[in-house]
Amino acid sequence: MSLAIGVDIGGTKIAAGVVDENGVVLDMERRLTPGRDVRATEDAIAEVVTLLRARHDAPAVGIGAAGWIAADRATVLFSPHLAWRDEPLRDALAHRIPGPLIIENDANAAAWAEYKFGAGQGASVVVCITLGTGIGGGMVINGEVYRGAYGVACEFGHMTLVPDGRRCACGNRGCWEMYASGRALARDARELADVSSLAAARMIELAGDDPMHITGPVVTQAAREGDPAALEIFESMGRWLGHGIASLAAGLDPEVFVIGGGLSEADELLLRPARETFRGGLTGRGFRPVARVEVARLGPQAGLVGAADLARTFALAH
Amino acid sequence: MSLAIGVDIGGTKIAAGVVDENGVVLDMERRLTPGRDVRATEDAIAEVVTLLRARHDAPAVGIGAAGWIAADRATVLFSPHLAWRDEPLRDALAHRIPGPLIIENDANAAAWAEYKFGAGQGASVVVCITLGTGIGGGMVINGEVYRGAYGVACEFGHMTLVPDGRRCACGNRGCWEMYASGRALARDARELADVSSLAAARMIELAGDDPMHITGPVVTQAAREGDPAALEIFESMGRWLGHGIASLAAGLDPEVFVIGGGLSEADELLLRPARETFRGGLTGRGFRPVARVEVARLGPQAGLVGAADLARTFALAH
Amino acid sequence: MSLAIGVDIGGTKIAAGVVDENGVVLDMERRLTPGRDVRATEDAIAEVVTLLRARHDAPAVGIGAAGWIAADRATVLFSPHLAWRDEPLRDALAHRIPGPLIIENDANAAAWAEYKFGAGQGASVVVCITLGTGIGGGMVINGEVYRGAYGVACEFGHMTLVPDGRRCACGNRGCWEMYASGRALARDARELADVSSLAAARMIELAGDDPMHITGPVVTQAAREGDPAALEIFESMGRWLGHGIASLAAGLDPEVFVIGGGLSEADELLLRPARETFRGGLTGRGFRPVARVEVARLGPQAGLVGAADLARTFALAH
Amino acid sequence: MSLAIGVDIGGTKIAAGVVDENGVVLDMERRLTPGRDVRATEDAIAEVVTLLRARHDAPAVGIGAAGWIAADRATVLFSPHLAWRDEPLRDALAHRIPGPLIIENDANAAAWAEYKFGAGQGASVVVCITLGTGIGGGMVINGEVYRGAYGVACEFGHMTLVPDGRRCACGNRGCWEMYASGRALARDARELADVSSLAAARMIELAGDDPMHITGPVVTQAAREGDPAALEIFESMGRWLGHGIASLAAGLDPEVFVIGGGLSEADELLLRPARETFRGGLTGRGFRPVARVEVARLGPQAGLVGAADLARTFALAH
Repeated sequence: MSLAIGVDIGGTKIAAGVVDENGVVLDMERRLTPGRDVRATEDAIAEVVTLLRARHDAPAVGIGAAGWIAADRATVLFSPHLAWRDEPLRDALAHRIPGPLIIENDANAAAWAEYKFGAGQGASVVVCITLGTGIGGGMVINGEVYRGAYGVACEFGHMTLVPDGRRCACGNRGCWEMYASGRALARDARELADVSSLAAARMIELAGDDPMHITGPVVTQAAREGDPAALEIFESMGRWLGHGIASLAAGLDPEVFVIGGGLSEADELLLRPARETFRGGLTGRGFRPVARVEVARLGPQAGLVGAADLARTFALAH
Repeated sequence: MSLAIGVDIGGTKIAAGVVDENGVVLDMERRLTPGRDVRATEDAIAEVVTLLRARHDAPAVGIGAAGWIAADRATVLFSPHLAWRDEPLRDALAHRIPGPLIIENDANAAAWAEYKFGAGQGASVVVCITLGTGIGGGMVINGEVYRGAYGVACEFGHMTLVPDGRRCACGNRGCWEMYASGRALARDARELADVSSLAAARMIELAGDDPMHITGPVVTQAAREGDPAALEIFESMGRWLGHGIASLAAGLDPEVFVIGGGLSEADELLLRPARETFRGGLTGRGFRPVARVEVARLGPQAGLVGAADLARTFALAH
Repeated sequence: MSLAIGVDIGGTKIAAGVVDENGVVLDMERRLTPGRDVRATEDAIAEVVTLLRARHDAPAVGIGAAGWIAADRATVLFSPHLAWRDEPLRDALAHRIPGPLIIENDANAAAWAEYKFGAGQGASVVVCITLGTGIGGGMVINGEVYRGAYGVACEFGHMTLVPDGRRCACGNRGCWEMYASGRALARDARELADVSSLAAARMIELAGDDPMHITGPVVTQAAREGDPAALEIFESMGRWLGHGIASLAAGLDPEVFVIGGGLSEADELLLRPARETFRGGLTGRGFRPVARVEVARLGPQAGLVGAADLARTFALAH
Repeated sequence: MSLAIGVDIGGTKIAAGVVDENGVVLDMERRLTPGRDVRATEDAIAEVVTLLRARHDAPAVGIGAAGWIAADRATVLFSPHLAWRDEPLRDALAHRIPGPLIIENDANAAAWAEYKFGAGQGASVVVCITLGTGIGGGMVINGEVYRGAYGVACEFGHMTLVPDGRRCACGNRGCWEMYASGRALARDARELADVSSLAAARMIELAGDDPMHITGPVVTQAAREGDPAALEIFESMGRWLGHGIASLAAGLDPEVFVIGGGLSEADELLLRPARETFRGGLTGRGFRPVARVEVARLGPQAGLVGAADLARTFALAH
């Protein structure tokens, strides 16, 4: 039996796990991400891998990180949370992590995990949408992660949905992730609270009576309790999710969309309106098969599991 | 030397050609498309192929048609111009056109031609945008036409660019092809003429003094003469083209966009504003390589050449 | 009994009538408008007035014209259909039409007629919306026509309803009259025909099989027959009408909106969705009286009747 | 010499002043507004008036309040900050404040003050835009406050500027005051901080390092220091202000727009882009006189001064 190690580098914490051939996580180590310090981050990665390898025979290591990974799977071009800019991460780690080592975009890794072990199993084309603070995207075509020409494909969250729409961190306006993401959820709720403290009363209460500190989890909790304002915000966000999926389906014609990430825990609050909008807005509906829209199955460990499995696959091929 | 025959089924005419291994068309036959009559269309296809085969040894035949071709490359799911609905076209033609025979979406065929012989030669990922009445899309990934899960991928013209925007023939609103296509060009000019016959004077004149009969070629001619109103319409359309390309680049990260079709003859009138908007609107600009935007090189025969070459490739593999 | 003469200068014809104190038209003369020739137009006006005066004792004359009439009610600042630019029309006509003479904006005249004799009778504030090719607006406040500081008030049709919306003849984009007017009606129908000849089949047929020559009356006829596409166009236009009325009500708080002009003949096709949208979109609904929305009662003679009555009122006061 | 008392009921404080015939405030009293308690608010009003009357011979009293005052100038239909709903305020106060007493909308009162003593002096039609948390509107036509049919006119802030735009406290979407007001200023800055803490760094610092607590004054201070992000927010808000003014000018044709309220202290930061957009977007520019756009001169006491002067005028007429 061949084990592999996956490491997920997030904005706030590093999670590493030993993963078997069925995608099961056998052991884990966690660290806080050391701010924007490149060397300290590399130290932490090396440390958790060394610890896990002391307990398991896991030759291949896959590292998943938010940001743009070059097509060589060795260089981080840019990372929004971390200080890497054109960083040769694989080389920097090679002497401390001997053996097969790859760097992977975290949303690509999550898409791979869902393709191999989750909601996209066996599908010819899987598009995975990870709803976190923003939108992460990944695609698996005929059993291969799609990376584009330069390694930076599947940034679906930065497709323009609304011309001259809301300002995005990427410098553009109207990006999809400004309308369907954890950040959008919290912002819509705060905007409602700003114009109607009455309508947003329950969410304001859950936010400790400070309307400006309403967060995504606050909206989710209020919606689950049946708060009409929170439900309406989810309904609206679900529709934006469906609009984007319909555009993606026009271009990519996948067999299945897998919706993952923290927001996907809201599940049917989000997916019902998303499916309705998608089906009502799919070009050529009635003359073509319609892609399924499924909730991701691997939860928060999808990135870690996918990175490990991609590393194992890479090791077998080399 | 191996020859192949490509047949391009358009809304108004059928063009068939014998194509060599370098993409050169050696011989051609043309017919008018017999309206919406399925049998008569099939007769015309069989007839031109038989005539060309009487003059050349061309074993493989590829047929390119607008519409949705199933992943089996044998069945037409739907065609906007012709009466085919779930039509098993390959089987219907097999006894009259013996030998290797494939059916292909015309924009896919054109994309393949540009990849093999034109502006996308050798690129790892080529996205081809064919600007005709609407927008046709095709993509070649690592030397293979991308077809999606069900054969109907790359309908980029039906990505939503403007929520609740202009009504499209597909039943949705705001599709990209309602803002960047020959149809959009003529419509914008007619709308201008409707509100200001002064501003649109030259285009009205070129349309035989009937503002409602301004066509795409009229706008192109006026723009080439330097008419300010026609130039502004091209500028605006070029910007919409660039917006759509920027969204595609976010998702697909190609090495090159190839812009073909009748409108591409307008060339820099359209491509200059498109490139500017694309480069200004690409997410992550500054941290990633930027795809090239090129004019197609194969002209109106791209579909025919691509269909023939795909048929030859198919024949070699089977 | 005091009679007065009203003259309505339209883009295509001149209508003059003798009007009694109850707004009844006793006698009429009609001429074709002599194109854009200022002198010939003045000749025609003088001629019809002279003819009517030969038959009736009607001392006061009111002339209603599309365009901007200065606050002195003597000068035409600008007329869209005619060649008047800063034209001292009253002086030019004074020696040929002796006696009290005023020039009035045609939509102001129509508003006055509806206030005195029609659907706005006795109301403290009447806003009149005249739906022709564009939108004409007039307002009567406490028994006086509202003219603004410079005589050019009530151009409601050029309030912006849609930022960066459809191009208007006035040079701006998104003006109300680009969404609710005879021109908008025909354009929407032609646009539909352009993308779906199937959906627009009945209107195309009524237009003599030339989709580009669908007119407002064609859409109205098709809608009356129950054609779903024409009905949807009216529904959509009615909603735009209601949106604009809601914005006007926020600013002007009238007692009644009177909807006149050619399009108002479509009546409930237009007014039902307009009323629904207005009532659903009125700010402060529930805490304030809601203005009525009524169809005009004076029909195509409203402008003429109003011009005559305003001239009589003016003569009495001087 | 005749004095009058004006009382301005704000959301947080009550200000009362003795005003002479030249609009000069001779004496003042202030109280905190007693929350949403109707009786306590009435007590506070009676108390300040009684105190001022003990020191001055001021027979007429005008009370200005945010909200909808019926045309009788005696009843508060609705107030957003206070608990009045269909409240007969004049009758409730009459026995405690003997003598001439009127209730007036605060923005109407401010418009009157600017007409009588400020930037709109002597103009035939004055439109006053008060930029506070929202937008207050008032209009003076030929020396009379315009009230509409039911007393609730000039709610310009609730004209729709953006169809399906931002949610407003009034229940609609896209109201002007959601794009040009103190609330909009703070919200835009917080939104920027939410997507780019780098761009909004100075404003975040001024807000005590809590991006969600950026306020209007914070943005104003940063803009005065030259902070590019704050300047861009003012530029954008100024353009929205200009768009709304252009629509108002189309309908109302005033001689002058007077821009008052707290935001007007930002002065040229706001008025330069507003004037540019207004002049560039005015329908018929070139063929008509263009209204002036001026900063209000009476500052925060405009409402109080206007209410007092309207009461004096009312007393003289009765």
